[in-house]
Amino acid sequence: MFEDKNQQRTSLSEFGEFRLIEHLTQYFPVKHKTTTKGVGDDAAVLSSSEDETVITTDLLVEGVHFDLSYMPLKHLGYKAVMVNISDVYAMNASAEQITVSIAVSNRFSLEAIEELYAGIQLACETYGIDLIGGDTSSSTKGMIISITAIGKAAKESIVYRDGAKPTDLIVVSGDLGGAYLGFQVLEREKQVFEVNPNNQPDLSNYSYIIERQLKPEARKDIPELLKELDVKPTAMIDISDGLSSELFHIAKQSKVGCKVYEEKLPLDPQVISTCEEFQLDSTMVALSGGEDYELLFTISISDYDKIKGNPHFTVIGHITEENQGLHLVSRANQEIALKAQGWNAFSNE
Amino acid sequence: MFEDKNQQRTSLSEFGEFRLIEHLTQYFPVKHKTTTKGVGDDAAVLSSSEDETVITTDLLVEGVHFDLSYMPLKHLGYKAVMVNISDVYAMNASAEQITVSIAVSNRFSLEAIEELYAGIQLACETYGIDLIGGDTSSSTKGMIISITAIGKAAKESIVYRDGAKPTDLIVVSGDLGGAYLGFQVLEREKQVFEVNPNNQPDLSNYSYIIERQLKPEARKDIPELLKELDVKPTAMIDISDGLSSELFHIAKQSKVGCKVYEEKLPLDPQVISTCEEFQLDSTMVALSGGEDYELLFTISISDYDKIKGNPHFTVIGHITEENQGLHLVSRANQEIALKAQGWNAFSNE
Repeated sequence: MFEDKNQQRTSLSEFGEFRLIEHLTQYFPVKHKTTTKGVGDDAAVLSSSEDETVITTDLLVEGVHFDLSYMPLKHLGYKAVMVNISDVYAMNASAEQITVSIAVSNRFSLEAIEELYAGIQLACETYGIDLIGGDTSSSTKGMIISITAIGKAAKESIVYRDGAKPTDLIVVSGDLGGAYLGFQVLEREKQVFEVNPNNQPDLSNYSYIIERQLKPEARKDIPELLKELDVKPTAMIDISDGLSSELFHIAKQSKVGCKVYEEKLPLDPQVISTCEEFQLDSTMVALSGGEDYELLFTISISDYDKIKGNPHFTVIGHITEENQGLHLVSRANQEIALKAQGWNAFSNE
Repeated sequence: MFEDKNQQRTSLSEFGEFRLIEHLTQYFPVKHKTTTKGVGDDAAVLSSSEDETVITTDLLVEGVHFDLSYMPLKHLGYKAVMVNISDVYAMNASAEQITVSIAVSNRFSLEAIEELYAGIQLACETYGIDLIGGDTSSSTKGMIISITAIGKAAKESIVYRDGAKPTDLIVVSGDLGGAYLGFQVLEREKQVFEVNPNNQPDLSNYSYIIERQLKPEARKDIPELLKELDVKPTAMIDISDGLSSELFHIAKQSKVGCKVYEEKLPLDPQVISTCEEFQLDSTMVALSGGEDYELLFTISISDYDKIKGNPHFTVIGHITEENQGLHLVSRANQEIALKAQGWNAFSNE
């Protein structure tokens, strides 16, 4: 599981910066006709368009956002793209281009960076994204990945965080808490491995939640599906820091409150069984887990019939007036105030 | 010179990530009507346009690209913006927006990050740039800054690296080598300071070259001036890695050679006197120095009369057939083959 399979090792300093960019980007053919010029000049050029341009950026730091002792580099490359394009989908837009900048210490070989880019390439192929630029550099410690994603949407389709209205329904795609529990399982196995490196873990009972952690999929299908169903959400955000934290963002920017029902939170059976094993409260995990990269959105109650019974969607509650605050209604019908327990990149956890 | 003037110190972890972004971006009013939505949602939104969109990104790593022992944080913020928008101007485009992501270790206080953003803000004000997004994170070591710059240009105005033709004239804006020599002076003073911290250096003889290193200005004026003069360069690039390295980029992509004349290289008197003091060859410094952020471009010989005598421009040579290679013609009229001595971020220098 934690074995280094790289037999060959070419140092990056002997390869040189310019050759490295050319080398890494040679297998990224341009797919969109909007990409007039990709990698290879001072800047990339995107064609003019009647659509609006959507731009988002994220920085991933080794030891803060990822741990290479159980995150294979190819998965990391894939996930780094997902994290970014998820923000584009959360605008109800389609993702079209990315730039990727990396800084790596001399601990990393050329072959390691090729693995990272193989994951980025797979993500680009699967999601129809053009790699249009970036930068490579050395770092004094570890690996840093900075990705900017660019997307398009018709002006009238774009969904912000600030449009939720009282009585709107709160909807999530997919299920919650899996990525966080996958992380817990991997952390436990890492500790077991450190004690006994010969121990080969059986992770088959955790395959879904580990995949949610190591190879999340951004919900490209949701903006497409919403369009088919003729539903324009009133507010939307992706769930990167945890449902509770994202609800706070929507509530703050829309100047509303909300009620979310514990019994409605969508949980995979593996999430429930693993919560029992780890003695974790599955509701807490669903509310605060983070990294699921599902979409959280609100819709007018008049659109309910359009999404009712759709297996991709779960209605988990509704929007209230601002002065009512943010509450979870428990199975015992008690109202519990929600806390914005978003993941804080500056905390010492 | 190297004194830490920060009296107050607020830790970033007590401040929290979401509040930090809000806090740092509150003094960045939106200036462009194309910026439909800036900081504060999953992504920024730029309005549709008849112009093409130009996008470029750079990563700056402490200990690799900058040394905080003589680079004040405010200057660093300013320079980080210049490095990026310079690439936009090198496309003959106008820069309009940036995203800024930073990762910082707990060595940095809130007040230090505010200084950095004060420099970013000054750059945005001076150059008319909107800050539209970004990310803040902790790092395990040092500071990393990732900036993406976005610009606009009419399709027919954009200048790539691949359009230079034999007989085209090679032109540079401003003068060369200053930033590199400023770096040499600062490195020397740093060593003096380490031996005797009470020694207060007199840097008045080096004010121009130190400013070229610590507070470079991107050539926003050049695309504007070229438009006024009705000159569209056939190829253009900004000089970040050194004249010689940039000539190689243009030559390779345009499939041409070039001749550059030693006696034509534009040098400031302070560059010449400091080269004498440091016993450096001023031609080598001009060719390989880097970080000047001037623009290097080629024009059709028929446009010569339009730029002749303009104090912003120096014609330094001309484009030749590819098989003639890249040469410097010395003052003694000898042809010396140029080397692409670009700065390599992976070398151990």
